[in-house]
Amino acid sequence: MLQTRLIAPADNAYSYPLLIKRLLLSGARYEKTREIVYRDRVRHSYATFTERVARLANVLTEAGVKAGDTVAVMDWDSHRYLECMFAIPMIGAVLHTINIRLSPDQILYTMNHAEDRFVLVNQEFVPLYQSVAGQLTTVEKTLLISDTEAKSADLPNLVGEYESLLAAASPSYDFPDFDENSVATTFYTTGTTGNPKGVYFSHRQLVLHTLAMASTMGSLDSIRLMGNDDVYMPITPMFHVHAWGVPYVATMLGIKQVYPGRYEPDMLCRLIREEKVTFSHCVPTILQMVLNAPNAQGHDFGGLKMIIGGSALNRSLYELAKSRGIQLTAAYGMSETCPLISAAYLNEQLRAGSEDERTTYRIKAGIPVPLVETAIMDDHGNFLPADGESQGELVLRAPWLTQGYFREPEKGAELWQGGWMHTGDVATLDSMGFIDIRDRIKDVIKTGGEWLSSLELEDLISRHAAVREVAVVGVPDPQWGERPFALLVLREEGGLDAKALKEHLKPFVEQGLINKWAIPSQIAVVTEIPKTSVGKLDKKRIRADIAQWQASGSAFLSTL
Amino acid sequence: MLQTRLIAPADNAYSYPLLIKRLLLSGARYEKTREIVYRDRVRHSYATFTERVARLANVLTEAGVKAGDTVAVMDWDSHRYLECMFAIPMIGAVLHTINIRLSPDQILYTMNHAEDRFVLVNQEFVPLYQSVAGQLTTVEKTLLISDTEAKSADLPNLVGEYESLLAAASPSYDFPDFDENSVATTFYTTGTTGNPKGVYFSHRQLVLHTLAMASTMGSLDSIRLMGNDDVYMPITPMFHVHAWGVPYVATMLGIKQVYPGRYEPDMLCRLIREEKVTFSHCVPTILQMVLNAPNAQGHDFGGLKMIIGGSALNRSLYELAKSRGIQLTAAYGMSETCPLISAAYLNEQLRAGSEDERTTYRIKAGIPVPLVETAIMDDHGNFLPADGESQGELVLRAPWLTQGYFREPEKGAELWQGGWMHTGDVATLDSMGFIDIRDRIKDVIKTGGEWLSSLELEDLISRHAAVREVAVVGVPDPQWGERPFALLVLREEGGLDAKALKEHLKPFVEQGLINKWAIPSQIAVVTEIPKTSVGKLDKKRIRADIAQWQASGSAFLSTL
Repeated sequence: MLQTRLIAPADNAYSYPLLIKRLLLSGARYEKTREIVYRDRVRHSYATFTERVARLANVLTEAGVKAGDTVAVMDWDSHRYLECMFAIPMIGAVLHTINIRLSPDQILYTMNHAEDRFVLVNQEFVPLYQSVAGQLTTVEKTLLISDTEAKSADLPNLVGEYESLLAAASPSYDFPDFDENSVATTFYTTGTTGNPKGVYFSHRQLVLHTLAMASTMGSLDSIRLMGNDDVYMPITPMFHVHAWGVPYVATMLGIKQVYPGRYEPDMLCRLIREEKVTFSHCVPTILQMVLNAPNAQGHDFGGLKMIIGGSALNRSLYELAKSRGIQLTAAYGMSETCPLISAAYLNEQLRAGSEDERTTYRIKAGIPVPLVETAIMDDHGNFLPADGESQGELVLRAPWLTQGYFREPEKGAELWQGGWMHTGDVATLDSMGFIDIRDRIKDVIKTGGEWLSSLELEDLISRHAAVREVAVVGVPDPQWGERPFALLVLREEGGLDAKALKEHLKPFVEQGLINKWAIPSQIAVVTEIPKTSVGKLDKKRIRADIAQWQASGSAFLSTL
Repeated sequence: MLQTRLIAPADNAYSYPLLIKRLLLSGARYEKTREIVYRDRVRHSYATFTERVARLANVLTEAGVKAGDTVAVMDWDSHRYLECMFAIPMIGAVLHTINIRLSPDQILYTMNHAEDRFVLVNQEFVPLYQSVAGQLTTVEKTLLISDTEAKSADLPNLVGEYESLLAAASPSYDFPDFDENSVATTFYTTGTTGNPKGVYFSHRQLVLHTLAMASTMGSLDSIRLMGNDDVYMPITPMFHVHAWGVPYVATMLGIKQVYPGRYEPDMLCRLIREEKVTFSHCVPTILQMVLNAPNAQGHDFGGLKMIIGGSALNRSLYELAKSRGIQLTAAYGMSETCPLISAAYLNEQLRAGSEDERTTYRIKAGIPVPLVETAIMDDHGNFLPADGESQGELVLRAPWLTQGYFREPEKGAELWQGGWMHTGDVATLDSMGFIDIRDRIKDVIKTGGEWLSSLELEDLISRHAAVREVAVVGVPDPQWGERPFALLVLREEGGLDAKALKEHLKPFVEQGLINKWAIPSQIAVVTEIPKTSVGKLDKKRIRADIAQWQASGSAFLSTL
């Protein structure tokens, strides 16, 4: 380490750790009358919100929650979840956001693994909670969240009901200072194999992520994604990477926030319209669902700006959203990255391009936000050039990456190699730093000695007018090693078989975009494509389904 | 300290210190073709700029500069200064930005006190440097900066000339990681008594300041002060708090930057026009100078946004700028605060107010930017209420405040009391967090047992049509303790004596804005008001001048 001149050590009287409580010093103070809305049920001002954060801290402290304890939440996206995102870390405890879309077994696993001591349970999840309660090894107390007048429920060691407890608690709390490297949040990410893995983020990491996100949302690009005048509603679950961390940004800037509870397309459209939502974000499948909702058909989304992440954004969805008045910007991140790594902001040069070129870049993973360092590596850990052509595993350094997986040092050592976080994504980087994700390493299809990107093929297939959704996976083939297989959901009016798909793809072969081995020799048309709990294509299940159909000679299959 | 759960300690393989070099990972990479302009002489792309930073690092390293060394710069505002703001801290050295407006004796004092080992000297300052060179105790080498073709000068231990050395150096440098608490910059602030004091800022502090500034400039308020499309030119010296830190923000965001050298109004207007500058910042006196410049008279400033800080922004200057097409926003900070503390962003409620109300708030010190904690205290260290009326000393906590004065522990202990930085400014805070600076503690006038704000009186006097500039100080008075004294510069067409000023102020007494003791019984009309090296009213010299005039019965005086 270089012998630089150091300022006074961080533990002196002047130190000022980066703590989540400090995100309440700006917007929450000067936009006191701005609203935080929950469905059509609750409207709170920021003044009330900050009081409720203090009340919740008092409730938890009186219930025995101590710094270092893990407090879990099972709730739909709500004002209460936002209150938990502040109050729980602000007393030095760890917020565990339970993925309520996991199976009961997986939920049980994550709660025991995270060592949850205290759980807030929405009324609707009481039966689920009861089904696992007997096997929970660390939970000491529960607290009921109710959307109705219910003040009690059959929950073990119930402290009481959220609203009643908050009403009775003091609206002020002297939130302490502590080490900024204290864990603030944890949640579990499901891989394709094995148990869910727990990632975790510190106060320092969340504060830096919030600042970096805020500094790009307002300042980069010609689009001001989120400014003080905007109205924000996430359509990404709050249990999933803190709704991508945007609620922290919105709160820091004092922006009106709308929380939709569970994702009913009618309610989402109604809130967008009635609360005048101008900024949101979600995964492609959820956007697809909203646009297809019956209630949304006559709806003018004009002026809505959205960030799309979680999976690749394809051109047809981009164009469809545009035709409905929604400006999309792709972004890239993952559970392990807090999550923001990059967004498809266009630089001056790209903004001057044709509309077609601009779209090409708007749907890529984008350029890294400030402080993020990116590189691509080959299988042997050698760096590859940022020439827009060399493909390698995307590796990262940034101030807000999970430092490992909780109580899984071996898996953490796989994630972090040589000081770089390994994403498992195959990407190219160009000279502007633009990231183009080509595939998940494990989803790359190896056919006839060539590597084929499943994502690229999905994009080309999705351009067919009859295709609503598509998933491409590699299936074992005795002659070629693997062959691409396409699983399709069609639009009502459409029809498509393997032969027609080949005709659709031929021009792309002729243009040199793909080689002829990329044309699937077998496809299946289904009514729904399996998704993971966070709405991504579940390629593990898709492969299993295909294997079963192939074994049974299913009528789903269409072969060249 | 609470027993929270800590993530892996900061010195593990995954640590990622907040270093200035990381500000080059975003904008400087994806806006490679954007320009950095120096007067009408030099235009570099960002790609060239980042290469030049590496070249400069190589030049300095080869000249023997080591981590922890202090490297001083004597230059006008330029692309070279920007290069120094990156290259010097990025090799672990400390950048000392010499205030070239100080007297030679003071410059000598600061260079010896800061322990400068290496000095970059602009050709124009060679005579100045030569005049102090014999008494410099720590400087080992010099480097010439030249705006002409001069490749050499009579400087002791001269390494060479900046451009020639850069041209010969390698355009790449492997910038190391080190502790984020390493000092990156230092400079000296002149108080009213004693020697200049050295403040200093770490990499961590500058990175956090940059992020917090960026996150408000784009996102708060309805005005997007600085976004990717803007063109930035500082009119605040780079030796003074790194031109308020904005060059770091502009570089992080890849924004076009224009550096004007010395402040010649004609050149400033020309650059604003020809380079299409849209965002700038300065102190009120410099704005006054620009607006009054002959060359600026026919100039349309439409679209220019400016932050005004350093001294109070009065309503008449705000209105004058507005009539010329410039949107001003006041901001508050000081050398000790890196400097940004607050800016006069308007919240939703204030934006809905009348134009007059909006102006009232646009010229105040404003609301704290994210992460900044403010309070007001009485003389005994008790906190006072944020009721918009109670006046006390403004005290601060933030992640980017100087931790003391270099080699002056006693003065540092005065600055930091009870964990709060004491600003020496008297202020009110209102319930929205708006800061209204009433005066410097030492400039408050105590007359007839009442406290009177010199700033408030200056604001009211400046509303007289004949007044171009005004300074109010308290002068000793045997009967009243102190009495206010107004020093005036008048517009060409105007005329004003103490009696006429009394008539002007009477309505404000009747409205209850000030009491009758506030009316000065003596004034002086002069052609220029003494200013400090950074353009603030030099009240110390003003008091001395007045004492001399009063002693000699000068004709300058006009008495009631």
